[in-house]
Amino acid sequence: MTQIDLNCDMGESFGPYTIGADEKLMDYISSANIACGGHAGDANVMDRTVRLAKDRNVAIGAHPGYPDIPGFGRRAIDFSADEIYRMLIQQIGGLQAFCHIHHVRLRHVKPHGAMYNQAARSSELAEAIAAAVYDLDPNLLLFGLPGSELLRAGKAAGLNTVAEAFADRTYLPDGRLTPRNRSDALITDQQTAVKQVERMISEGVVEATNGEQVKLEADTICIHGDGAHALHFVHGLYESLREKGIKITSPGSS
Amino acid sequence: MTQIDLNCDMGESFGPYTIGADEKLMDYISSANIACGGHAGDANVMDRTVRLAKDRNVAIGAHPGYPDIPGFGRRAIDFSADEIYRMLIQQIGGLQAFCHIHHVRLRHVKPHGAMYNQAARSSELAEAIAAAVYDLDPNLLLFGLPGSELLRAGKAAGLNTVAEAFADRTYLPDGRLTPRNRSDALITDQQTAVKQVERMISEGVVEATNGEQVKLEADTICIHGDGAHALHFVHGLYESLREKGIKITSPGSS
Amino acid sequence: MTQIDLNCDMGESFGPYTIGADEKLMDYISSANIACGGHAGDANVMDRTVRLAKDRNVAIGAHPGYPDIPGFGRRAIDFSADEIYRMLIQQIGGLQAFCHIHHVRLRHVKPHGAMYNQAARSSELAEAIAAAVYDLDPNLLLFGLPGSELLRAGKAAGLNTVAEAFADRTYLPDGRLTPRNRSDALITDQQTAVKQVERMISEGVVEATNGEQVKLEADTICIHGDGAHALHFVHGLYESLREKGIKITSPGSS
Amino acid sequence: MTQIDLNCDMGESFGPYTIGADEKLMDYISSANIACGGHAGDANVMDRTVRLAKDRNVAIGAHPGYPDIPGFGRRAIDFSADEIYRMLIQQIGGLQAFCHIHHVRLRHVKPHGAMYNQAARSSELAEAIAAAVYDLDPNLLLFGLPGSELLRAGKAAGLNTVAEAFADRTYLPDGRLTPRNRSDALITDQQTAVKQVERMISEGVVEATNGEQVKLEADTICIHGDGAHALHFVHGLYESLREKGIKITSPGSS
Repeated sequence: MTQIDLNCDMGESFGPYTIGADEKLMDYISSANIACGGHAGDANVMDRTVRLAKDRNVAIGAHPGYPDIPGFGRRAIDFSADEIYRMLIQQIGGLQAFCHIHHVRLRHVKPHGAMYNQAARSSELAEAIAAAVYDLDPNLLLFGLPGSELLRAGKAAGLNTVAEAFADRTYLPDGRLTPRNRSDALITDQQTAVKQVERMISEGVVEATNGEQVKLEADTICIHGDGAHALHFVHGLYESLREKGIKITSPGSS
Repeated sequence: MTQIDLNCDMGESFGPYTIGADEKLMDYISSANIACGGHAGDANVMDRTVRLAKDRNVAIGAHPGYPDIPGFGRRAIDFSADEIYRMLIQQIGGLQAFCHIHHVRLRHVKPHGAMYNQAARSSELAEAIAAAVYDLDPNLLLFGLPGSELLRAGKAAGLNTVAEAFADRTYLPDGRLTPRNRSDALITDQQTAVKQVERMISEGVVEATNGEQVKLEADTICIHGDGAHALHFVHGLYESLREKGIKITSPGSS
Repeated sequence: MTQIDLNCDMGESFGPYTIGADEKLMDYISSANIACGGHAGDANVMDRTVRLAKDRNVAIGAHPGYPDIPGFGRRAIDFSADEIYRMLIQQIGGLQAFCHIHHVRLRHVKPHGAMYNQAARSSELAEAIAAAVYDLDPNLLLFGLPGSELLRAGKAAGLNTVAEAFADRTYLPDGRLTPRNRSDALITDQQTAVKQVERMISEGVVEATNGEQVKLEADTICIHGDGAHALHFVHGLYESLREKGIKITSPGSS
Repeated sequence: MTQIDLNCDMGESFGPYTIGADEKLMDYISSANIACGGHAGDANVMDRTVRLAKDRNVAIGAHPGYPDIPGFGRRAIDFSADEIYRMLIQQIGGLQAFCHIHHVRLRHVKPHGAMYNQAARSSELAEAIAAAVYDLDPNLLLFGLPGSELLRAGKAAGLNTVAEAFADRTYLPDGRLTPRNRSDALITDQQTAVKQVERMISEGVVEATNGEQVKLEADTICIHGDGAHALHFVHGLYESLREKGIKITSPGSS
């Protein structure tokens, strides 16, 4: 039977501030990437989100990011690879502790924002991240862009890697995401998004912005939880995929 | 053979800022309480300090504190017991992760500053701390003041507890520490400090400020690492105790 | 002509996080208390909110709070009076700078959350706040609870003070606010709120929870901007007051 | 009479942490660049340092930096020019407020670390900084590297600019500082440093690392206050300059 993982960034609220509709979105995904207090999240939010994911039977992953809450981890910051290694040990270690007290396993790691983007291109940074994940738990899955330095470094380190594609982003002919500043970067029509995901799953292919068919590895589909229509969009995608007989399940689960 | 533990707060540097002479003090102690990024410390400092303690064969403990670096965790802050429970999960969990990558065990927990003081008196807070420590690892030792709510709660939770006394602080007739704002709160003369520690160990007694002999449980002696004369003081105490045939070793080690 | 000031806390968003419907609420108030990066807000938010208030012709005030964004400045923290004085100089000074570049005057100061509550009771704290406000600009108005230490200290320092009452909170027979943990603390019915405000304005009286009529000074009415029904509530209050011929205008404006 | 300004970064302590020997260094300089809580400093430190500079008759400048205390403002961070403009309004505005309460004028602005370096090369960033300084007070002097975008933008904005040279850094034949990662970047011999400063003042020339004589504008000499030998070095420089009849005085003072 065909299957796919739907993952979503979760636990990005902070103190008195709320981002995302975690409670509702949790019903439509199979993997939750939980912020670790770096770019977002705090001890209260981490605890609540781990518990929520466990209750809904969603696989729990760590979503570490640069320690820059005002910038939501999206600003490039000039950290050394060593600093990033240690930043991950602390952030993921903190989330592992919440998993421990809730008797649930941490299953994957997906870096956030600028860290994710910089690790796609920089082998040094990618290797630091892979080393941190491996050193914490060699059974953790590492999420990243297909073709990225991050996935290459993860495999080289001995980790199982998971290639991530997007339902609501368009692709260039070279298989990379269309930069966000281009007007055709985002897919807002739900049917188009569903079709893109279906073809990724069934044929391993995406139609690029110029109409070309591009091969694209996709083990998991990233869903965005903020924005006015996020919930509606995700719900629609979830229902459509299930109607087509595609099972939504986390990677590594049988 | 008589023995005692000497513990010291460590890893309290932060970013570009240094506090304490960790490198040198580590030779004269048997237990290091390592800051967890709450009141002090950061990922780089935690990593470095765990490695240093491991290299010098010093037992590693977590030293969680209120998340208030400008106040160094010394200001009372009105957290709920639940928030403190979760704060400890995150902070101690982070330190456990550094212990994990360095293949060394976390051995004890000693709360810092205002958290330590508030947990001595508040049973609700003490129980939250004891629960967090137990939930993370029931083999962890909990350090606290003899007679405190913290040690009581630790025992009730099923933890092994370690009663902490001070070499450089005086005691009141009721066994409590003389408040710091009193002029006779501190012992600055090294011989007086050594004598106080010896009597604690050999007789389980301390001479209070009014001359009375007071019973005092003391499984570990807290050493202060900052201040101009700290290193000299600690070195002298260490040498004196060894000359009297007292073995300096962490609790739980045989 | 009868008149009253309606004030609302504004500029409490932070980085990627939004709190409050500032843009819309600004139409229904005469004084905006703008967060100064202590309990909430940041340079981007301060700039945007000062500009917004200026554009809508709303009087601008500083809303300093304890530097505790995760706790939104609501947690009591044990600062010394001196520290609070200096915290206000920095926070209010930063907001004055935004007023300066937008060529608009800072008109008042209203402390936030725990600082507001602690300054109502502690004369030492109240005097530190009054001194900071006076030293920055003796023409600034100081907002506070009627009968509070804060207003007393403000007057003693030579400041003009503004007594604040609440539309959506009930009062005890001694004139104090019903504590939030009581079930009758909040007024959710809009007509009741409007009536309470009208009597405050026309008779200087509020009906306490036991039915007694209590004298209450009220120069400004505090409006709450967060929560699902805030906007609706405030709009209704604004319209009702205007229908009764009550002018909504900031204190000090003629 | 020949004269020069000696400037030093000050007020870079934070909470419980100390950096620099401000109290002692203040006797040997004419301009103090005071951290504004961005890369270092806090309200207590700002207050204390402004008072100290005033007492010693040292000109007070603002030393704004990226809001990154763990990285001491030395890490490049990808802020937009607009964000940097607003960051400066808040930081410098805070320091102006401390100057106001101490009845002393803010005289200059010198950006710190990564902000200083990025503003030397980026015209967009330089213009944002110049605009912020000008908008706050057009009489403020702007310190920067000779030939930098920062000084160019400052002049274009209508500010008086001050070219900064270094006593303890070597120069390349193109007039730029030798990068710190080169072994010949620093001057550690005091006589060499004194000679370099003298030639800058008397001839407007510096000897580059290859022996070439390079023209170099120098209105102020930057002195470093941290490091083991800083105080000794600065004291020696101060005495040598005075012996040669060079007056040490802030720019703009007659």
